[in-house]
Amino acid sequence: MSPRQRDVTDLVSRAIAGETRSIARLISLVESESGQLREVSELLTGHLGKAHTIGLTGSPGVGKSTTTSALVTELRARGKTVAVLAVDPSSPFSGGALLGDRIRMQEHTTDPNVYIRSMASRGHLGGLSWATPHAVHVLDAAGFDVILIETVGVGQSEIEISELADTSLVILAPGMGDGIQAAKAGILEIGDVFCVNKSDRDGAETTRRQLRNGLSMTARADNWKPPIEMTVATDGLGIDKIADRIDEHYAHLLDSGGLQSRRVARAAREIQAIAIAEIMRGIDVSAGTLMQSLATKVTAGQLDPFAAADAVLDHVR
Amino acid sequence: MSPRQRDVTDLVSRAIAGETRSIARLISLVESESGQLREVSELLTGHLGKAHTIGLTGSPGVGKSTTTSALVTELRARGKTVAVLAVDPSSPFSGGALLGDRIRMQEHTTDPNVYIRSMASRGHLGGLSWATPHAVHVLDAAGFDVILIETVGVGQSEIEISELADTSLVILAPGMGDGIQAAKAGILEIGDVFCVNKSDRDGAETTRRQLRNGLSMTARADNWKPPIEMTVATDGLGIDKIADRIDEHYAHLLDSGGLQSRRVARAAREIQAIAIAEIMRGIDVSAGTLMQSLATKVTAGQLDPFAAADAVLDHVR
Repeated sequence: MSPRQRDVTDLVSRAIAGETRSIARLISLVESESGQLREVSELLTGHLGKAHTIGLTGSPGVGKSTTTSALVTELRARGKTVAVLAVDPSSPFSGGALLGDRIRMQEHTTDPNVYIRSMASRGHLGGLSWATPHAVHVLDAAGFDVILIETVGVGQSEIEISELADTSLVILAPGMGDGIQAAKAGILEIGDVFCVNKSDRDGAETTRRQLRNGLSMTARADNWKPPIEMTVATDGLGIDKIADRIDEHYAHLLDSGGLQSRRVARAAREIQAIAIAEIMRGIDVSAGTLMQSLATKVTAGQLDPFAAADAVLDHVR
Repeated sequence: MSPRQRDVTDLVSRAIAGETRSIARLISLVESESGQLREVSELLTGHLGKAHTIGLTGSPGVGKSTTTSALVTELRARGKTVAVLAVDPSSPFSGGALLGDRIRMQEHTTDPNVYIRSMASRGHLGGLSWATPHAVHVLDAAGFDVILIETVGVGQSEIEISELADTSLVILAPGMGDGIQAAKAGILEIGDVFCVNKSDRDGAETTRRQLRNGLSMTARADNWKPPIEMTVATDGLGIDKIADRIDEHYAHLLDSGGLQSRRVARAAREIQAIAIAEIMRGIDVSAGTLMQSLATKVTAGQLDPFAAADAVLDHVR
């Protein structure tokens, strides 16, 4: 065992023991996409699957961070330890977008049983960071009862979050045309629990009705009927009901076998993503110049891209 | 040559000759992800690269479709033939979301030199449809001078559209908090021409100023300074200037060599996507059962996902 390996083994042990600084360092390590990710993943095996992962999504302005913060308060009151992973799917060039949200979470920063972390990056393949599932694994192994994965609800990223979560909470607010937006973004299919926040405002009832109509026309593979709750997160109103509905959904997942099938599907996606990343690394490392010359030929109309792909695959294999 | 092959060869020839019905059938063929895609791609080789592809993105409500329609009118007045590809990145379950937009395009449906097509699907890897670049190739080979690729601006999809386009037009409107949204979604980096639509409304000047400030702080790899124009698309106001700016950007791309490098990069991404799809097909076909059993082991904590990915790759190779 090399000194570096011993360091990683030690770091993982400390993170599993729940030591905050080691958790932070380990997430930074998996975020850096270092060669040690494989080693970390190996060391975490056997320590996973205990946390209830909950995805929170919503368009900008629905009060997502306030709701997350209120939910943390409620879950803590119920005796649960909570980790929050705030994922920003925006461009890497425009970092710091989640700063305002972090400030809203400040009341929890002195609670040793709450861990808050932002990740601001987009992934290789044009989606969420490749590191996000690995960060979730670290938090899971560290023993948090609940992991809240929060993201700005922009198109694809909320679908990806729902694939990482056991339970997906979708937050809407009145007067944002969200009834229509819900249908467009496909969130009707991914939400397990819906929350109409800012429900003291005009139009909350309309938003709920539109949502209920939309849900009644949406086919689900399981037999869960997604509930809708009204909240005013700034005052903590309705947040207890959200926590109840989330618990009920988890109980339903356990009873129906849905938890196991969701998690197996998630593992399959993760294995696939790793396999693809391995192949892409192979292309970058050994076929970089080849790719450039093939792409130039394709651009000049001398080669079709399928034949070019064959050449790349032959080279990598 | 099998009868089916002869059919495809014939279809591609007719599409290249500009026959509308054959263009439509050929796009449907590439959309269906049939095994004939490779053959189509081969037949299109040598007929590509003539069209100027322009991406149009903007949040819901900025007047994207009205702007697209007005731009089509302007380009037609300049004697150019135009194809419009409207890509809906939302869930496949919620089809028909672009219906309203199509209605707005109706004035062009009787013009034989305008071709309009909607594609409503999301791709394998969680982004735009895999078929979108292939549909663009069909329209390019069919000889349209300009191909407008329009999409709802939700996060990742607009970045993907910008990767398909020679020139990216980003549309904003006043009073939508777009100054901040622009920064979050990374559109400052991808826009080559910016349009503040609904510029007769309050706040248009503020939106322009915010945008200009944002752009002044944004680093670009080329030395193009993205212009901002004010429009009222419903009245056609300012659309001529948009068309001018788009032309100027194209001229800049030609002069600077940027067109070639953008297109080579695009070809490389396409080759890579095909290579990945090939490998994934291999995984589905030959490693489907294996994947299920590996994913079950990973879920049970008996195997780490990297070792599982190795097993999948060994099997596929």
